[in-house]
Amino acid sequence: MSRFLSDRLSGLEPYVPGEQPKDGSILVKLNTNESPFPPSEKAVAAVAEEGKNMRLYSDPNGTALKEKLSQVYGLDPCCFVLANGSDEILDFAFQAFADDLHPAAFPDVTYGFYPVFARKYGIPYREIPLKDDFTLDPENYIGTGETLFIANPNAPTGIALERQVLERIISSNPDHVVVVDEAYVDFGGESCIELVNKFDNLLVTRTYSKSRSMAGARLGFGACCPELARDLESVRNSTNPYNVNRMTLAAGAAALDDEAYTKKCCAEIIRVRDKTAKELQTLGFSVLPSSANFLFVKNPKISGADLYAALRRRGILVRHFSLPRIEDFNRVTVGTAEQMKIFLDNVKQILEEIKK
Amino acid sequence: MSRFLSDRLSGLEPYVPGEQPKDGSILVKLNTNESPFPPSEKAVAAVAEEGKNMRLYSDPNGTALKEKLSQVYGLDPCCFVLANGSDEILDFAFQAFADDLHPAAFPDVTYGFYPVFARKYGIPYREIPLKDDFTLDPENYIGTGETLFIANPNAPTGIALERQVLERIISSNPDHVVVVDEAYVDFGGESCIELVNKFDNLLVTRTYSKSRSMAGARLGFGACCPELARDLESVRNSTNPYNVNRMTLAAGAAALDDEAYTKKCCAEIIRVRDKTAKELQTLGFSVLPSSANFLFVKNPKISGADLYAALRRRGILVRHFSLPRIEDFNRVTVGTAEQMKIFLDNVKQILEEIKK
Repeated sequence: MSRFLSDRLSGLEPYVPGEQPKDGSILVKLNTNESPFPPSEKAVAAVAEEGKNMRLYSDPNGTALKEKLSQVYGLDPCCFVLANGSDEILDFAFQAFADDLHPAAFPDVTYGFYPVFARKYGIPYREIPLKDDFTLDPENYIGTGETLFIANPNAPTGIALERQVLERIISSNPDHVVVVDEAYVDFGGESCIELVNKFDNLLVTRTYSKSRSMAGARLGFGACCPELARDLESVRNSTNPYNVNRMTLAAGAAALDDEAYTKKCCAEIIRVRDKTAKELQTLGFSVLPSSANFLFVKNPKISGADLYAALRRRGILVRHFSLPRIEDFNRVTVGTAEQMKIFLDNVKQILEEIKK
Repeated sequence: MSRFLSDRLSGLEPYVPGEQPKDGSILVKLNTNESPFPPSEKAVAAVAEEGKNMRLYSDPNGTALKEKLSQVYGLDPCCFVLANGSDEILDFAFQAFADDLHPAAFPDVTYGFYPVFARKYGIPYREIPLKDDFTLDPENYIGTGETLFIANPNAPTGIALERQVLERIISSNPDHVVVVDEAYVDFGGESCIELVNKFDNLLVTRTYSKSRSMAGARLGFGACCPELARDLESVRNSTNPYNVNRMTLAAGAAALDDEAYTKKCCAEIIRVRDKTAKELQTLGFSVLPSSANFLFVKNPKISGADLYAALRRRGILVRHFSLPRIEDFNRVTVGTAEQMKIFLDNVKQILEEIKK
């Protein structure tokens, strides 16, 4: 921290993203919930084509992409706000809808960026404990008088809530915004996006990073009623009106022309996830019920940190969080069937070695 | 503004970017200071290649690009902070280095985003009047006890300050950060980037949008001492650790392998700029002395708004600001020689029509 840094930011505790290894020591990368499948060929072609036009600024309104999103999700184009990854929409939402009078609240075990945003803006926040089994007790979210951030499915647990439960929470907090972060919803969750037309206090956030295999393109969006969208657009236009680059706008629209491919990839990830979960249980693991593209797992025979380190030595990268309640776990991204076989074979060997 | 928007943001007045026309009515686009030349072929090829890898997150540290920047600019890699366009670095700088105790200050006529950032974060700011000829009086910036934002060359005037003048300003404010915004420096300004090794309170910001023909890719960077860079990285990692996408990181590095092309494009823009300035003067225009890729011009025979509108009807788009002191002017991006011939021919016709 330099002597110039504003006291306002003294509480800053930056988010630590998962490692993006650049050396050749990692054979199987299962640590940041990327898709193991390539992006749609249409998206790749759109990137190459649009690169030729990059001397010109991108469309600050993202009109073409919003029209496509409108067709796919059945909402008016003015219900969408585009962002440089869904983290940016979440940042805008903290700025716009949370403050001393509207403190933030979210589960104690959830996406680690929520408290980072709150601290950055000096927003008071409350972490609501999940139950012992890491499920969320809806009663804790009814009429709380706080701006709520709920990841559904939750991360890093993978556990999903039913839409009707979220609908109860949203309708019980009519004077506060409820943000439902659906980064992982395409892997088996029930989306709340159709509720946008029903509730003026609902913001659903989505990302292209997971189900659409475009983490490196940086594209996310919010879906909400037009009034909330205007607020978020005001923040966006006070931050970076050209926040989404040309290539990514084009790829984002092209990917929507290939929804069958996205669905096929998601179905395969779900199949491999459920198969991997069963095999891990056979090996003595506790596996939380996942509706996402990752598994959150622990084994009584080995600590989370030790399993992480043993896998790392064998060229397999998963994600371990040294945090209260979850330090025994590892979060394992669901890769291809081949990758998960390598992962499972190595886990077996590691467990065998412990026995000796 | 919805009923949910935080009072904290009640002062929000979003930046209004220049129009990005999507219909076919614009033949010559001279309104947002883009380069008329295509990006480097190496950058275009890098985009196409990297699009294939977009399933993976980008490198959150931008290591490869920082190493290239280090070679080109002669600073340590840890002196660079990468951003989704230079607007993002400016936003980070307002957050990190300006507050009630360190109010912001900048010229009254300058880049319109500075007051937008200040208002967004509730930072007090002072607009220091330029002289009548739109030059900056350095005495107004000596030891002011404020966080200074100085665009050099300035926008929308195009007028540049000498490096030694900025050095005096920087050294007279040792306890406050001085941000020198060099978006347009490659068109004839004197860069302060070499002063980064000398002053711990200097932040130089740069963009790929102008001289490197990559406005649509969104890439900017800050250059400063390692301590300031760490502060800015803390803000970045509390905002969006993957703020620059994969394709843009690759294109940004590839463009640095083609510096001769960038220099050639800049030289041609300077040549066409100076020729256009002379011809406009012949037509009775006042033309501010430009060191940028645009001309700021007015003509006593026609108002700024009328000239803007008349050009627009003829398919030529320039930028007009309805703001005090500069409403008589238009800002005209320097295009190709052919584009400027069309522009000048139309200006002549418009002036002829007025005579009748």
